[in-house]
Amino acid sequence: MSNKRVAFIGLGVMGYPMAGHLQKAGYDVCVYNRTQAKAAAWVEAHGGRRADTPAQACAGAQMAFCCVGNDDDLREVVLGPEGMLAGLEGNTVLVDHTTASAEVARELYAQAAGQGVAFLDAPVSGGQAGAENGVLTVMVGGQTEAFEKARPVIGSFARSVKLMGESGAGQLTKMVNQICIGGLVQALAEGLHFATRAGLDPKAVVEVISKGAAQSWQMENRYESMVDNHFDYGFAVDWMRKDLGIVLDESRRNGAQLPVTALVDQFYADVQEMGGGRWDTSSLYKRFEHKKS
Amino acid sequence: MSNKRVAFIGLGVMGYPMAGHLQKAGYDVCVYNRTQAKAAAWVEAHGGRRADTPAQACAGAQMAFCCVGNDDDLREVVLGPEGMLAGLEGNTVLVDHTTASAEVARELYAQAAGQGVAFLDAPVSGGQAGAENGVLTVMVGGQTEAFEKARPVIGSFARSVKLMGESGAGQLTKMVNQICIGGLVQALAEGLHFATRAGLDPKAVVEVISKGAAQSWQMENRYESMVDNHFDYGFAVDWMRKDLGIVLDESRRNGAQLPVTALVDQFYADVQEMGGGRWDTSSLYKRFEHKKS
Amino acid sequence: MSNKRVAFIGLGVMGYPMAGHLQKAGYDVCVYNRTQAKAAAWVEAHGGRRADTPAQACAGAQMAFCCVGNDDDLREVVLGPEGMLAGLEGNTVLVDHTTASAEVARELYAQAAGQGVAFLDAPVSGGQAGAENGVLTVMVGGQTEAFEKARPVIGSFARSVKLMGESGAGQLTKMVNQICIGGLVQALAEGLHFATRAGLDPKAVVEVISKGAAQSWQMENRYESMVDNHFDYGFAVDWMRKDLGIVLDESRRNGAQLPVTALVDQFYADVQEMGGGRWDTSSLYKRFEHKKS
Amino acid sequence: MSNKRVAFIGLGVMGYPMAGHLQKAGYDVCVYNRTQAKAAAWVEAHGGRRADTPAQACAGAQMAFCCVGNDDDLREVVLGPEGMLAGLEGNTVLVDHTTASAEVARELYAQAAGQGVAFLDAPVSGGQAGAENGVLTVMVGGQTEAFEKARPVIGSFARSVKLMGESGAGQLTKMVNQICIGGLVQALAEGLHFATRAGLDPKAVVEVISKGAAQSWQMENRYESMVDNHFDYGFAVDWMRKDLGIVLDESRRNGAQLPVTALVDQFYADVQEMGGGRWDTSSLYKRFEHKKS
Repeated sequence: MSNKRVAFIGLGVMGYPMAGHLQKAGYDVCVYNRTQAKAAAWVEAHGGRRADTPAQACAGAQMAFCCVGNDDDLREVVLGPEGMLAGLEGNTVLVDHTTASAEVARELYAQAAGQGVAFLDAPVSGGQAGAENGVLTVMVGGQTEAFEKARPVIGSFARSVKLMGESGAGQLTKMVNQICIGGLVQALAEGLHFATRAGLDPKAVVEVISKGAAQSWQMENRYESMVDNHFDYGFAVDWMRKDLGIVLDESRRNGAQLPVTALVDQFYADVQEMGGGRWDTSSLYKRFEHKKS
Repeated sequence: MSNKRVAFIGLGVMGYPMAGHLQKAGYDVCVYNRTQAKAAAWVEAHGGRRADTPAQACAGAQMAFCCVGNDDDLREVVLGPEGMLAGLEGNTVLVDHTTASAEVARELYAQAAGQGVAFLDAPVSGGQAGAENGVLTVMVGGQTEAFEKARPVIGSFARSVKLMGESGAGQLTKMVNQICIGGLVQALAEGLHFATRAGLDPKAVVEVISKGAAQSWQMENRYESMVDNHFDYGFAVDWMRKDLGIVLDESRRNGAQLPVTALVDQFYADVQEMGGGRWDTSSLYKRFEHKKS
Repeated sequence: MSNKRVAFIGLGVMGYPMAGHLQKAGYDVCVYNRTQAKAAAWVEAHGGRRADTPAQACAGAQMAFCCVGNDDDLREVVLGPEGMLAGLEGNTVLVDHTTASAEVARELYAQAAGQGVAFLDAPVSGGQAGAENGVLTVMVGGQTEAFEKARPVIGSFARSVKLMGESGAGQLTKMVNQICIGGLVQALAEGLHFATRAGLDPKAVVEVISKGAAQSWQMENRYESMVDNHFDYGFAVDWMRKDLGIVLDESRRNGAQLPVTALVDQFYADVQEMGGGRWDTSSLYKRFEHKKS
Repeated sequence: MSNKRVAFIGLGVMGYPMAGHLQKAGYDVCVYNRTQAKAAAWVEAHGGRRADTPAQACAGAQMAFCCVGNDDDLREVVLGPEGMLAGLEGNTVLVDHTTASAEVARELYAQAAGQGVAFLDAPVSGGQAGAENGVLTVMVGGQTEAFEKARPVIGSFARSVKLMGESGAGQLTKMVNQICIGGLVQALAEGLHFATRAGLDPKAVVEVISKGAAQSWQMENRYESMVDNHFDYGFAVDWMRKDLGIVLDESRRNGAQLPVTALVDQFYADVQEMGGGRWDTSSLYKRFEHKKS
């Protein structure tokens, strides 16, 4: 078991470049992906190795990463008969970059601990561009010792890596992130929609108001594609709805009130109905202006 | 009528320092305030002169400013028998810094034009601190020629001065600003509330998520006072409700849909009910946590 | 001035049949309508007389009714140079059936009182069918003595006539009515939309659930046209928005919180945008299903 | 196996009187309850028998009923090692009166079918009073043949029993019921809150407006306890939130948009936070007026 042997399970739009950064940083990466052609392409592009199952990819690895779709995918890839825990030896670290529930994080943490594997929930923000440029932000839940081991490795593809608390705390932090984005994007969409109806030039408006208390990353980075009616990129509405579903479930447990988040989640249902499941989250704007397109 | 003679009507928390900057910049300022003691204090502090009526303050001025409470105050101070238009000569400029409706702006523009006075609606953002430090952002509606005359004078207390379009466009731009802030602050409040319920350290959470797509001026500048339950400062809820009332009225005319803005306006009604009319707009957070205070 | 002489100003879809019921009940009705052809048609159909101005219609009348569009129409028809108060003698009663603000009611009450005329604000519910069948519900604000005089006359076209309090109380009661309807219709629309998506037969569902705690007049009388996508009748969205605008303005004064009402008002803006200003209020359902029509 | 032998599992506020009506109607009822003392009390009051496990209660029964808390309770009581399916013979009917998800209904339907038992999902409405008076409304999903067998037995405690479609359709119908109630009660709460702020007498207002288009069962049956601030009875907020959670989960699958339902669910979270988990659903009113209590 070499210090440099790592596994990466799940080569989606995020995992593919993340695994690439690990290989470039000098780790000996063995990948697994459900669609094997993608794994083959990755090996062709980056070197490294690929395996036929998560368990095989993890065999002999000191640290294993995964980044899959949702709670169910995650359970399967970690706990399944050919799953990661079937391949990992004791005294290793399993880092999960999936945005999932805090519940599944704690469940997998307990299962992994049973065989001496330290599980870290480590969802990311920064999107596809952040993954490709290796500048993701990573929010981690789990034990300090495992975090200290994983931090430099995660640093291969992240600009900021932070331990937020015990198991589940990474997921919970990501949820706060999504809550803040939902209402903010809707407010921005309402503002730009109003600007258009008022006969103002949205570009000029943003130039002025982004200097003050209304400023946001979304305003600076999304207003242009919003008013240009261009949404074929970015963070998909389908993923946002999945995340908000996790948020709203968790709020039923912790008693938080999220009225605007709950409402915006319903507006995203409308975007899905319009055929926009793959559009960027900024497409909330299109709900107001779609009759004109 | 000297190029350097200006009038300033309304010495509230914004107008007082704005007029001060004009005097410091070398203009010969004559002020008027309903409560005369404040005008006297201003003269004592800054030099300049004061008058007994808006009309007197404007007599002989090349340019006149006002910054009062709402549409009704504005109509009175401009159109009243002792109002600004009663004092201003032709070929002068009247700059209104009140946040008011686009309707009243257009109405006063027309009235002023009738006697050769160019009216500019010029609401500001940047708050009390921006006024005191002379770094306001000013959004202007009106004619280009008058704007070009006023721009350097406004520059005495502003960092950014921009012509947004014809009469009313300044007010409409300010409305977009308030729309964007309303939903954004509510989303931030929900995020921090959730973080607290989830057992996270809000400060640590903000440190991480403010690096990415959830970032906003409000997050960076308000999260700390929100979680510290400290709201005795900033932009008052009563003023925000006044502004959102103007926004929602205007949306009835231009057909814009503002679901989250309308909802947040109602949440501000709850804050008022809690006794928070003078609290900062970030006090939306307190609605969730007030049982603990 | 005969006990039987009455005036009726405003022969819209409500006023036309209301005035007809008065004439049938034996009153000597003199009508006025802005579009004179309608007044002529009314006289042809019902007998009675018509006048060229509201003032003329009111001359010699013991009691005068009006039913017009909004606050501005009402002020004009009552206070204008040829308005009702210009024609009415002292010791008469002016009954206003317009749905308007409580403010305008109190203003007209005061103006009328100044010349010995008792003003009653008396908005109605029951819709066009209620007006035609003479079974309206009338909510009255004003003084008891005037109410007692007007009650039997109003009884010509109403099933229920009730004094709710001092001037304005009739309008405020009507506002409560509209608040209760807004959220209720939206909830019903969501229920039927969900039923359709769930593959249920909406008719069968309503048959069952209208027996219990979910029952409402709207459910019993509107579900069928909702699922049949038939909205060309009933109480128009444009009128509902006017009423909700009055409600929301009044709530700014009395401090009431109306989150769902404010939200539903925005959804009605969406219906207007879809071209549904003339559709029945139940068309909130169409927002969900319009892509299929 | 006698035609008259039936089992009843779950003697809560609903199940206790329902089982009693069965015994009174001449069925030979064997009950089971987790807290055995309640089962003993039931037998003392009604006759019949009690068993130590669901399986024992079902042994020899022709038809078995259950009415428990939620999906998890239901799975345990039906599928557990000592569960109902362990006791039921083939060619029998299992009627579930729990308000649960359509998913669990379909899952149990399939499991039961595997051993020749016909499963009917049969949630009820009518509340505790309806159960005690034997006048419940029952919405059933499942196969016609089983429904026809069960209908007369269910008739012991129900006024209306209706087959809504295949397995799950009973639960889906109950969901529509809860959707319609949520927004309706909130609208009523807003209306009464506004009435109070407007200085009107809510009783007089309801007397008038319940004659028309704003009428609802909730208005007629709940307004009085609402304005009297009396909520210690009825259908508990905790149960409503459980039901709305099921509704919102299902809507993620069928694509229905439920903006007001989602918002009202959050307002119920606020009531829970106020300590009102056991209050009647009409306590949404108390959110507005609690500072005065």
